[in-house]
Amino acid sequence: MSGIESGARCFRLVLEYDGAGFEGWQHQAGARPARTVQGVLLEAASVLGRGGARLRGAGRTDAGVHAEGQVASLAFATELAPERLQAALNARLPQDLAVVECRPAPPGWDALRAAVAKHYRYRIWNGPRKSPLRQGRWAHFPVPLDTARMAAAARDCVGRLDFAAMQAAGSDVRTTVRTLSRLEVSGAGGGEVVLDVEGEGFLRHMVRNLAGTLAEIGRGRFEVSEMAAILASGDRGRAGPTAPAQGLTLVRVWDDLSPRGSAPT
Amino acid sequence: MSGIESGARCFRLVLEYDGAGFEGWQHQAGARPARTVQGVLLEAASVLGRGGARLRGAGRTDAGVHAEGQVASLAFATELAPERLQAALNARLPQDLAVVECRPAPPGWDALRAAVAKHYRYRIWNGPRKSPLRQGRWAHFPVPLDTARMAAAARDCVGRLDFAAMQAAGSDVRTTVRTLSRLEVSGAGGGEVVLDVEGEGFLRHMVRNLAGTLAEIGRGRFEVSEMAAILASGDRGRAGPTAPAQGLTLVRVWDDLSPRGSAPT
Repeated sequence: MSGIESGARCFRLVLEYDGAGFEGWQHQAGARPARTVQGVLLEAASVLGRGGARLRGAGRTDAGVHAEGQVASLAFATELAPERLQAALNARLPQDLAVVECRPAPPGWDALRAAVAKHYRYRIWNGPRKSPLRQGRWAHFPVPLDTARMAAAARDCVGRLDFAAMQAAGSDVRTTVRTLSRLEVSGAGGGEVVLDVEGEGFLRHMVRNLAGTLAEIGRGRFEVSEMAAILASGDRGRAGPTAPAQGLTLVRVWDDLSPRGSAPT
Repeated sequence: MSGIESGARCFRLVLEYDGAGFEGWQHQAGARPARTVQGVLLEAASVLGRGGARLRGAGRTDAGVHAEGQVASLAFATELAPERLQAALNARLPQDLAVVECRPAPPGWDALRAAVAKHYRYRIWNGPRKSPLRQGRWAHFPVPLDTARMAAAARDCVGRLDFAAMQAAGSDVRTTVRTLSRLEVSGAGGGEVVLDVEGEGFLRHMVRNLAGTLAEIGRGRFEVSEMAAILASGDRGRAGPTAPAQGLTLVRVWDDLSPRGSAPT
């Protein structure tokens, strides 16, 4: 909380961004200066209040990952009412980042700690050729995918399970057990395959590793039954490759301040 | 046909492109050098056959307008079979342009003359704030639109009518009478408003002028009944403004070589 004025007020922001132009949510310590969602938003906020500001995101999206409904807590000393703050921020933000909602939050409210569930969507373009109009928003998998096989394997990922096999190498977390409440595969035909993933919390690259593994099952390189075996092994080396960042979108976050009537599935 | 070798073969191409990076389909005479869909495609084709090539599009899309299913005729002397030609073109084309279909066409076949109907879609983002993820693909109209009013006015545009009031100023065509078979307004809620327009032929800026006029009706600046009066007047000055190019997509073209079972509505 260093640099935050006493009398700081706290806000819950809902953010939409096109991840293509950002090196993720958060600056990585030691790396060269990078354009991050957090950095661009803090810069826009800096002129709207006194002293420093604290900004935390519910999900630390990686470089290239999009958001329709990222949630962030912003604490700083400002006189602006939430709706005025939102308008003032949006007037200062670039085209690829917008505050779609801004509401007051209790003092000390922290979006990361408050989050109880998140919904990610992974979009796969499964046509034989690249699609210019899906460029940057869909990941291209040209080999035909059997979505019935993917859906069957996805069912083995729902529940309270150890997802160590789906975690980015080199991660350091206390436990790799997570609860997935939903992993649905939709193939409306015409080449668009969509994965909807909901859970309480996610390991680094977990959704992209699940997508990459399901794609291997969909194209027939892994058996459907292998998903359970891969998870049971806890071995990252047995799972499929990490699917590209541009296919991933953080759709929604649930917390104690979420609008009512919108419980996660 | 100057520059085309004897023995040239003709192909029917279906093209997808993101219009943001193109100054339209066709180079405007006298203008400075521009990146056009036609120019980029001809350049890719130039190394795949002998002599010159002739390329015509069914719709001469303006700068910024997208296509999911533009049709073009390509005539040049090549030994390549259609599927090999398609792969070779796609290997040479940039990310924002792709050949999604390539089939043989009879000698002299001309996509512009062969087109019997086209389907355009106009996408309006009607949220109060800009949407980073809809940037470049949707036109932003922040004032709330009443889609029931727009749909009612749209019905007055269907049929064989004089669309002089919806034509770009300075156009020089023999007749401004065109037949629209479909003009549907869909508002699925959540701020996305979609116009689907089908017809035999279109005047310059006609779809964008219809969209701009329907938006004026949707926001309450024009009465629903004014659409018929505006059309009857033939006066461009009475219609609404030209809606932005980035909201428009050429979805599909029907001609004598279209796959069967896909008649326009």
